[in-house]
Amino acid sequence: MTTIYNFSAGPAVLPKEVLQQAAAEMLDWHGSGMSVMEMSHRGAEFMSIMDAAQKDLRDLLAVPANYQILFLQGGGLGENAIVPMNLMGKRPEATIDFIHTGSWSGKSIKEAQKYGKVHVAASAAASGFTTIPPRAEWNLTPDAAYVHICTNETIDGVEFQFAPEIAADTNGAPLVVDMSSHILSRQIDVSKYDVIFGGAQKNIGPAGLTIAIVREDLLGHSLPVCPSAFDWKIIADNGSMYNTPPTYAIYIAGLVFQWLKRQGGVAAMEQKNIAKAKLLYDYLDSTDFYENRVEKNSRSRMNVPFFLKDESLNTVFLAEAKANGLLQLKGHKSVGGMRASIYNAMPMEGVQALVSFMQEFARQHS
Amino acid sequence: MTTIYNFSAGPAVLPKEVLQQAAAEMLDWHGSGMSVMEMSHRGAEFMSIMDAAQKDLRDLLAVPANYQILFLQGGGLGENAIVPMNLMGKRPEATIDFIHTGSWSGKSIKEAQKYGKVHVAASAAASGFTTIPPRAEWNLTPDAAYVHICTNETIDGVEFQFAPEIAADTNGAPLVVDMSSHILSRQIDVSKYDVIFGGAQKNIGPAGLTIAIVREDLLGHSLPVCPSAFDWKIIADNGSMYNTPPTYAIYIAGLVFQWLKRQGGVAAMEQKNIAKAKLLYDYLDSTDFYENRVEKNSRSRMNVPFFLKDESLNTVFLAEAKANGLLQLKGHKSVGGMRASIYNAMPMEGVQALVSFMQEFARQHS
Repeated sequence: MTTIYNFSAGPAVLPKEVLQQAAAEMLDWHGSGMSVMEMSHRGAEFMSIMDAAQKDLRDLLAVPANYQILFLQGGGLGENAIVPMNLMGKRPEATIDFIHTGSWSGKSIKEAQKYGKVHVAASAAASGFTTIPPRAEWNLTPDAAYVHICTNETIDGVEFQFAPEIAADTNGAPLVVDMSSHILSRQIDVSKYDVIFGGAQKNIGPAGLTIAIVREDLLGHSLPVCPSAFDWKIIADNGSMYNTPPTYAIYIAGLVFQWLKRQGGVAAMEQKNIAKAKLLYDYLDSTDFYENRVEKNSRSRMNVPFFLKDESLNTVFLAEAKANGLLQLKGHKSVGGMRASIYNAMPMEGVQALVSFMQEFARQHS
Repeated sequence: MTTIYNFSAGPAVLPKEVLQQAAAEMLDWHGSGMSVMEMSHRGAEFMSIMDAAQKDLRDLLAVPANYQILFLQGGGLGENAIVPMNLMGKRPEATIDFIHTGSWSGKSIKEAQKYGKVHVAASAAASGFTTIPPRAEWNLTPDAAYVHICTNETIDGVEFQFAPEIAADTNGAPLVVDMSSHILSRQIDVSKYDVIFGGAQKNIGPAGLTIAIVREDLLGHSLPVCPSAFDWKIIADNGSMYNTPPTYAIYIAGLVFQWLKRQGGVAAMEQKNIAKAKLLYDYLDSTDFYENRVEKNSRSRMNVPFFLKDESLNTVFLAEAKANGLLQLKGHKSVGGMRASIYNAMPMEGVQALVSFMQEFARQHS
């Protein structure tokens, strides 16, 4: 049977070991006689799963003690409203600064306008979202309520290669970061950010779980219209158990965190991700048959959009890729072409198989 | 090995057949080479799972064609805000009527006050929430924005045995129903309600999925502050795919729906649930060792709170129950005592085992 490699942008490939353990434990978790899905979230069994998941994530990202880790629902699109609803209560008239780097930050800008005054401090629109605007070109607002960036644009395939310093230009505004599609793929210094959030369905686990890492002094500033179930302070005060959390998704995320630790943690994953991305980009840069349009120093290690120069071959490319076990390579409809998402759980062998297939396809159709 | 019966109030027991199928399909769903967790929500494979789940739920509840079935996130507590945010845009000054029947409707009342004027049209507080106030005693508001009821109170163990008529007293206000903890356990006429919602983690599937069934003409009346990701009209227009849905939870829910159909559907489940509840309540009424305090015609078929007359025996009761494979019987902290939740997936044998244990425990400690 052909080995399957799944390049979906999310929900995305999970480590096989994690799925095997989940299957083995499905009917009876650790001799409890229950599936994790059947456990009361307030029982000792699930509490141990929740505590381990939070602690392992804290270890993996070296989250400082003055940051809370919250497990939420609603995904990145939900968080686009939940972030301003949680931060705008203190100074509702203050301006929210955004850096517009692609599809996801664009959605965040649109949604935030419901809850405050919005200023786009820099935009890569003129480049067709193939660059990250350099920090020097950002036109930040003094006394901004906060500054929002998306450090990896899943659809456009651009990624921040730096942690921006914004304090001097904003009088110390909090930096809010959507890390949905590259969290845990590279080392970060959490203390350089103030709020980090992300949907789980790329590098963490199943869709339906959202992670937020929030500096404690930013809790308690919600707008009056913020639903209790999405109020970070209420969620933090209740250990992410104010409403019933997505227990099974948290369990799978916990298994992924354990798997990451066995792989050597985020530093080791980053080295693997650099090697995987290099293999694919080097090939793309070596051929005229395919093309990646992102500026080299803004390229994402996670999401690699590319185009066949002859787009009339797209359908046959996708069909032959699928026949070779290379799944979900179709690009996002707003960009077109192809996209290979090569998250943590994608092994080097998957990228090698993709490049080999692309070479052979190019040879046959040149 | 002792057979395990899990009486958790939620997340709760699931049909063993469903868990077995989920385990078997975990690494490779229907020859796709992917786990359901790894599938793009927009791919053909997951779309077929989503479509089947929606269609099966529509069949099971005979949902009329002018109602949309929405798959959401945020649970019942989330919906306490999401309901008024979706319904109050048309007439923000109108009054929301509530029937206060216990813990859950109490939480709904508190949260709704953020979004509109609230009137408690009837309350069972004086009885300690052991009754459902008869319809004749409701003091409804003419031209109410909507009327909110919770037809099964998970914590207090009371359940509506009737579908209230409210049109005449309210000039046709919509009737909104929280059915979280008894949906699919008894036959209902959906057309007698206007919005039905519920968290999945009792009779449907894993925590993290919320179901809403909304009459179509009620879509599009959201408040400006309603987050897009929780705006029913946007969710309906996007087939519950505006943001990435909780795909694995939807898959499990779909397997539960298929299981329900194999059991003979809701009508057959209702007969089983009547028999299970009768066995337990009949025993409780026959003994002085235990007590259920709910008025007989308001008793829930799903959640049966009970007390040992000698509460000093609580700890040993729970320990011995667990040793006999009877799990998660501790009552909610706000009520105390014990609680047996006997949802669809609890077989008659589980209730028989519970009653036998209770009889033996009473004999030994009388």
